[in-house]
Amino acid sequence: MSSQEQYFIGIDGGGTKCKARLQNSRGDLLGEGIAGPANPLRGISQAESAIVDAAEQALTNSNLPLSLLGSLYAGIGLAGVNLPGFNAQMQKWQHPFKAMHLTTDLHIACLGAHNGEDGAIIITGTGSSGASVVNQQYFEIGGHGFCVGDKGSGAWLGLMAINQSLEALDGVASYYPLVDQVLSFLKVTNAHEMVELLVGKTPAFFAQLSPVVMQAANAQDPMALKIVEEGAAYLSNMARRLLSNAPPRLSMIGGLAEYISKWLDEDVKQHIQPPKHLPEIGALLLARTLTQTVREA
Amino acid sequence: MSSQEQYFIGIDGGGTKCKARLQNSRGDLLGEGIAGPANPLRGISQAESAIVDAAEQALTNSNLPLSLLGSLYAGIGLAGVNLPGFNAQMQKWQHPFKAMHLTTDLHIACLGAHNGEDGAIIITGTGSSGASVVNQQYFEIGGHGFCVGDKGSGAWLGLMAINQSLEALDGVASYYPLVDQVLSFLKVTNAHEMVELLVGKTPAFFAQLSPVVMQAANAQDPMALKIVEEGAAYLSNMARRLLSNAPPRLSMIGGLAEYISKWLDEDVKQHIQPPKHLPEIGALLLARTLTQTVREA
Repeated sequence: MSSQEQYFIGIDGGGTKCKARLQNSRGDLLGEGIAGPANPLRGISQAESAIVDAAEQALTNSNLPLSLLGSLYAGIGLAGVNLPGFNAQMQKWQHPFKAMHLTTDLHIACLGAHNGEDGAIIITGTGSSGASVVNQQYFEIGGHGFCVGDKGSGAWLGLMAINQSLEALDGVASYYPLVDQVLSFLKVTNAHEMVELLVGKTPAFFAQLSPVVMQAANAQDPMALKIVEEGAAYLSNMARRLLSNAPPRLSMIGGLAEYISKWLDEDVKQHIQPPKHLPEIGALLLARTLTQTVREA
Repeated sequence: MSSQEQYFIGIDGGGTKCKARLQNSRGDLLGEGIAGPANPLRGISQAESAIVDAAEQALTNSNLPLSLLGSLYAGIGLAGVNLPGFNAQMQKWQHPFKAMHLTTDLHIACLGAHNGEDGAIIITGTGSSGASVVNQQYFEIGGHGFCVGDKGSGAWLGLMAINQSLEALDGVASYYPLVDQVLSFLKVTNAHEMVELLVGKTPAFFAQLSPVVMQAANAQDPMALKIVEEGAAYLSNMARRLLSNAPPRLSMIGGLAEYISKWLDEDVKQHIQPPKHLPEIGALLLARTLTQTVREA
């Protein structure tokens, strides 16, 4: 191991897990790490611990000593740091790295999807959001969280399916097969049991219902069709807003992307291209720019 | 004070406060009490404490000793006890009263609105729900809670106004004056500040926006009109479902009732009559039936 060797870590801190990827200066993948949730909205200190855990795991899996933590250039993408208060709190963090570039999870996903070049992304998984980088201008949209936003996401599909099922069970909306599929998936038999089950549940719980809704829409269930079409219309509008920034590429990522993309409007679908790399690679691209800053400082 | 005197307490346990009303056997109002929230979904023991607090206050305000608590016949309406699990937990309560009749807040509201006779009610305040009592058959509808249900409620109007404002601020939906009114009411200037402000907020917080939405709808704001019309359409459907049970009367109560009732469909509006009494009176009517049960036991 050369004493001049530099190490770079790219970290994707999400609401369900925190992933880290370690590279040397030649860009070789040395090792990876995975830790628990790193969403600062659910606790700043939990997010900070998850980041350090994931980085330490990546060092261990690379057969490197934990003492190297202080030598790492870290690029970190984190949900919630677009919010001014959380950003201010995270910036105060006495982090253990040599240098840190902190940005949103959306930003690193966009950089990764287009290998650091200009482009736009739509993420639809548990939540939904979009971003573009064009001429070094970063723009983001959506991602306002469950249940005030995130239309067209897995959690939103689940919420709508439950909402419409409850209305059908009450006899104030028409009853379709989706209602029985929702009851069956949740292992409940009526509205009261459903409501009781849902008390205090997270967006990830609601998102578990999204395959049920997508499958019903593919089978032409009218209730599911209405939900999926409304979600897809929102994602199409989001895509058009991003395309108005003239990105050369548009990618769609996240657990729901492959299922809902066929429901988007034709004018939007024709722009969609596969992502080039994972968000962690976007974070690593940011980490690499830090050596400039540190040398200049 | 006669040793044969009997005391009855009617308790309306809601999500924001718990109200008690004490009567003697002649039906004279002796005193009232008000305590904190009594929603078992937010904690069984908090609900139980609020009920006892409100009852003790009513005794004190009636110049009666607290030792009389064990002589009270209590009729109690409580949100959430329609849910089987919460109901089971509340039934296990070692309550301090001589006898207790526990039912939903909706049930006592319906009994109060029609002085114990047949009728139906729609409640729209922070939440929304409906109930009917016809030929001793009790039926209820809606009230599934924020944000899976409660369409047409104050919290739902606020949620929709925020959701639509965020889409307009993102440039994916049209911008109308309501957006600026929402920003101004919340004292924020952009989407990020709005989202950050809303983290962890209760339905009651969202419901604070309902007068802003109703005022904008009355001023023909297209965004507000769409929200209010969707909420009112749901309440109209709920009313039709209740009217299908053939109740002789239908009343609408709750903080939003007087503002949203004019938006209901004409066929529904013509059935609405003012409520006769408060929910606490409905609870007292139930408390009075307990003397039969206790004598028979």
